[in-house]
Amino acid sequence: MEISDGETLAFDYLVVATGATPRLPGVPGQDLEGIFCLRNVTDAIRIRKFIDEKRVKRAVVVGAGLISLEMCEAFRRLGLETTVVYRKDLPLRRLGEDFAEQILTELETNGVAFMGETSLEGFEPTDTGGIIVHSSGGTFETDLVLLGLGVVPQVSLASEAGLGIGSTGAISVNKFLQTNIPYIYAAGDCCECFHRISQRPVYAPLGDIANKQGRIAGANIGGQNLSFPGIVGSTCFKVFNLEVASTGLTAEEAREVGLKAEAVTIQGVSKAHSYPGSRELHIRLVADTENGRLLGAQAVGGDGVVSRINGLAVALTGGLSLDELAYLDLAYAPPFSGAWDPIHIAAQKLLK
Amino acid sequence: MEISDGETLAFDYLVVATGATPRLPGVPGQDLEGIFCLRNVTDAIRIRKFIDEKRVKRAVVVGAGLISLEMCEAFRRLGLETTVVYRKDLPLRRLGEDFAEQILTELETNGVAFMGETSLEGFEPTDTGGIIVHSSGGTFETDLVLLGLGVVPQVSLASEAGLGIGSTGAISVNKFLQTNIPYIYAAGDCCECFHRISQRPVYAPLGDIANKQGRIAGANIGGQNLSFPGIVGSTCFKVFNLEVASTGLTAEEAREVGLKAEAVTIQGVSKAHSYPGSRELHIRLVADTENGRLLGAQAVGGDGVVSRINGLAVALTGGLSLDELAYLDLAYAPPFSGAWDPIHIAAQKLLK
Repeated sequence: MEISDGETLAFDYLVVATGATPRLPGVPGQDLEGIFCLRNVTDAIRIRKFIDEKRVKRAVVVGAGLISLEMCEAFRRLGLETTVVYRKDLPLRRLGEDFAEQILTELETNGVAFMGETSLEGFEPTDTGGIIVHSSGGTFETDLVLLGLGVVPQVSLASEAGLGIGSTGAISVNKFLQTNIPYIYAAGDCCECFHRISQRPVYAPLGDIANKQGRIAGANIGGQNLSFPGIVGSTCFKVFNLEVASTGLTAEEAREVGLKAEAVTIQGVSKAHSYPGSRELHIRLVADTENGRLLGAQAVGGDGVVSRINGLAVALTGGLSLDELAYLDLAYAPPFSGAWDPIHIAAQKLLK
Repeated sequence: MEISDGETLAFDYLVVATGATPRLPGVPGQDLEGIFCLRNVTDAIRIRKFIDEKRVKRAVVVGAGLISLEMCEAFRRLGLETTVVYRKDLPLRRLGEDFAEQILTELETNGVAFMGETSLEGFEPTDTGGIIVHSSGGTFETDLVLLGLGVVPQVSLASEAGLGIGSTGAISVNKFLQTNIPYIYAAGDCCECFHRISQRPVYAPLGDIANKQGRIAGANIGGQNLSFPGIVGSTCFKVFNLEVASTGLTAEEAREVGLKAEAVTIQGVSKAHSYPGSRELHIRLVADTENGRLLGAQAVGGDGVVSRINGLAVALTGGLSLDELAYLDLAYAPPFSGAWDPIHIAAQKLLK
């Protein structure tokens, strides 16, 4: 392997851990001062410093994924006027219109303006250090722009080295984290991982998965024989006072991979009805109509959402069916749930 | 069936749902005014009314189970001087000395006096409406006593009717909730249930289990053919600012039923280290040394305890092994956990 100063390094094993880079919108002016991406702590410090030094009052967030929505909360906490520009009609559309609308309401309740079905056209600087945003929804001025358009895997080095690239655009690896060249491993945001429910390789650039892949690759190079069992597709985030989480497939995703899926959505509460501070919680279960097996779950609510989704992530890992979920022995006490947990209620409704 | 006014009722099916009654200490004076058990809302209202009307300042709680400790919190909230009298050295001993000591510290930090290794000897009234408590730890005066010594199943009617009583003392039922007489069902706190991990009938008089049994018995009488899969032994409670939960077996319990068990205990945090409000959390995993399967888990901490134990309850239901737990795909975001959850860390430590 040759490194940038021309030196050549010999290796027995190589790990490609080139990560991912932010996806850019490809519009004029995207490199202007005051336009940021957020990938790491250095980025966060740069953004914060810019806000403080330039006395930023207004921020525009482009995109409506997890990072974008978390940054909306951060900007509002600093008192910034915050506007989201997003090409689709609702944030987190994947979770379904009903849940996406609850997320939108949470944003608006907390003073975030949401410009849906709006495409970004470009940026221009103003004389006073501001930024003009051109979009299909009009032209307006802001002080700071955050581009939250997701990431693309960094695979140029891997491609040049002849490593196989999967259909997702990320490096293809087997369960031992080996690429098509057995002594070259890949781990983290540059590579694919196996989705246990869709049974397909997917691109899921998340920190916890990268950690697991790195550990497995390292252990195998060190002489162990560990395999990464893959993911079930669990994610979560908090936006203002709302928890949002999902695991496995949505009904739509299940049908796309050829499964027969049906879904049910229920409204429950995070603690016992009688207990102070109990909050609304909406949960959707998706199951295979042929064998009753759970395929996925999505949830949104004030509290207890991530906890339920994690229980259901374990259920996906164990291949549990609705029959099992309907009578699952969960720990019950009023500060934590009702005697029938929303998981039970949803599973029983879907069984009918 | 004959009822109390002498009338005779005919039936096709009978459901025995006689519940349980509080266990009494069997000491002189246990029926004095001001001495209470807590089984239902009526009891709670009676206790509260007594406290208000008699201007109660001091309370003694006999026993240190879930109800006792929850009542300590309730009494302290009302400003009562609260003392626990308990025959063992520590509360919730089953969870292990380390966890029991944390619970004791939480009680003491919140102003509860704990008299361990103390046996109750009897009660006497005072002239001024107080109650003298005689115990192996000395004689003292209080205004109110709560007896929290657990419950005993109400099986006298069942016994007289010739229904089989199990070794636990509760009514024996099959997975359809039928007693030994097929047209007589039993459900709730009067009957046993099947523990999926120890593979034995156990007596677990908990509200959520009673609900499930009632629904299954009712469905079967109504012509369905549902079976109750049994329990994995999940319980939880909150005492002041501590969450306590467990599922499955302790290492000791596993060995008692002939399993080869080993355990590991780790200290983790409820959210990402960097996230505000993250609190200490201690979790113990118990696994079968022969096949690596999870057998149980116990946890105590400020936050996120019940959520982890519920995930592990699902893992027990699915028969997951430590290999699976070590790389479980849990939803990760800093407000909810670190990239490596305490479950991962504990499972990896136990695998070594």
